[in-house]
Amino acid sequence: MLSAVALAGRGRGRTAPNPNVGCVIVRDGRVIGRGWTGAGGRPHAEAIAIEAAGDVAGATLYVTLEPCAHVSARGPACADLIVAAKPARVAIALRDPDPRTDGRGIARIEAAGIAVATGVEAAAARASMAGFLTRRSKGRPHVTLKLATSLDGRIALPDGSSRWITGPAARAHAHLERARHEMILVGRGTLEADSPTLDVRLPGLEGRSPRRAVLGHGAAPEGWTALRDPTAIAGLDGVDHLFVEGGAGTAAAFLAADLVDRLLLYTAPIVVGAGRSAIGDIGLADLAAAHDRWRLADTRTLGIDRLSIYERI
Amino acid sequence: MLSAVALAGRGRGRTAPNPNVGCVIVRDGRVIGRGWTGAGGRPHAEAIAIEAAGDVAGATLYVTLEPCAHVSARGPACADLIVAAKPARVAIALRDPDPRTDGRGIARIEAAGIAVATGVEAAAARASMAGFLTRRSKGRPHVTLKLATSLDGRIALPDGSSRWITGPAARAHAHLERARHEMILVGRGTLEADSPTLDVRLPGLEGRSPRRAVLGHGAAPEGWTALRDPTAIAGLDGVDHLFVEGGAGTAAAFLAADLVDRLLLYTAPIVVGAGRSAIGDIGLADLAAAHDRWRLADTRTLGIDRLSIYERI
Repeated sequence: MLSAVALAGRGRGRTAPNPNVGCVIVRDGRVIGRGWTGAGGRPHAEAIAIEAAGDVAGATLYVTLEPCAHVSARGPACADLIVAAKPARVAIALRDPDPRTDGRGIARIEAAGIAVATGVEAAAARASMAGFLTRRSKGRPHVTLKLATSLDGRIALPDGSSRWITGPAARAHAHLERARHEMILVGRGTLEADSPTLDVRLPGLEGRSPRRAVLGHGAAPEGWTALRDPTAIAGLDGVDHLFVEGGAGTAAAFLAADLVDRLLLYTAPIVVGAGRSAIGDIGLADLAAAHDRWRLADTRTLGIDRLSIYERI
Repeated sequence: MLSAVALAGRGRGRTAPNPNVGCVIVRDGRVIGRGWTGAGGRPHAEAIAIEAAGDVAGATLYVTLEPCAHVSARGPACADLIVAAKPARVAIALRDPDPRTDGRGIARIEAAGIAVATGVEAAAARASMAGFLTRRSKGRPHVTLKLATSLDGRIALPDGSSRWITGPAARAHAHLERARHEMILVGRGTLEADSPTLDVRLPGLEGRSPRRAVLGHGAAPEGWTALRDPTAIAGLDGVDHLFVEGGAGTAAAFLAADLVDRLLLYTAPIVVGAGRSAIGDIGLADLAAAHDRWRLADTRTLGIDRLSIYERI
């Protein structure tokens, strides 16, 4: 199942409003089929994996989300495909909250005499589908806030110069993260000061640059989306993963609105002293209120920099 | 030798102006004697280890610093003790830069027909004797700067409230670090705002509270040392390890004077936003000048907080 979860990650940022699902089919200890949701949401992971495997009789099919029970104009229901393919067992990480499925996929497969296990590696699957699940549960995209700071939390010198805080490995990783989101957002100040292109500048991923948005009043550049305030993200069509890149006022606006789900904190081994801080006023009344909101989910070394990933508790 | 280095750490902050040395004696794969420099610099590690072992014939003696070659009123030369004890071999991590020894200890032991190996685990030994070696090479104490910040580098809210950023495990670790230094220093602002006691509040270590100092003009509290500027640390008698605890102006003064050897960075999993920064103006002209000065030496989890230790490159 963890292989299926890893495959699911390949579709992250490309399948909204559909979930990014991963599927692995195993027989006699060998992987005979793999699939993940295609760009735009089709084909579904199960369809790809079953087609790759050909004959799945006697096999176990691992899938990160309950197979869909509804036929659409774009393809058959995955539950029906599985019933027809007749694997011996199906392992499912999460039940599909979509009311058109929500247990009906499982019931249809079980009714065909195929054994079904649910809840397998549910936590990992939940993390891999954070965008889809946040959209379903909160009616808005999953929001990642990226910060790249010195050891003392600075993002620039007092004059605004910020090239470079972090090194090439950290910057490349941030570009990879961009490709995992449907949209990148910056504040108007950052847009006007830095004219960022916000594209994915990594070999082979040039075509994966997300849509761009700017927070604040005034006109947006051509092709950009303008958002008046953070709560407007709920209305973003086809955006289940939003990447907020700064600056400090924008970061503070999203934090103050309690609209950040994940912090990507790149820390360079430098001390800046006087300079610009990463996050502006979030309206914190006392320190106790700041606690119990974030937990460290992962940390790694990127060149000489550190990446720490914090998730909302 | 790494066991000897670990023992050496027990004397850290208690032996100035003498080095904190560790010694382990091994025969037939068994440790038969251990020792580390006593408080105030005596007895020496080798004397304690040899006395504990009794008979060291045929054994290997590991010691983190070249045994001294000079007799003092406080005890015999360790090189002579070793020659008399007749171990089969002596392994030494570092040569003693003290001109009264500086190779003479090694020569005297070799002249007695005892095999000597030098440079064994020299890097680890060097780190364990950073205070003694910094005093010898730079004529000043080894300086550790402690910072306890939020994820965004804040040490307090705008009104100065700072209880608490980090949790009990991180604060206990900071108290343990206090006990490893001969002196703790804060700025006058911190002294007047917080009236810190700067003692070691850990069970069993109450007697290990270091001397206290304040940076800045004006009178010092009774029992405290007043320093007009960071360079005055060179004149501190009996202080080989200085622990600088803040605030932001004091941290900046030591960093601007290039007088920080080690950064202890405690990071709490909280976001503060508007607030007081950890480090004031250090006079940094451009970001490139901030690079290649610090390397991550260690990182660990303390409760829900992270400790990152950076060392000067």
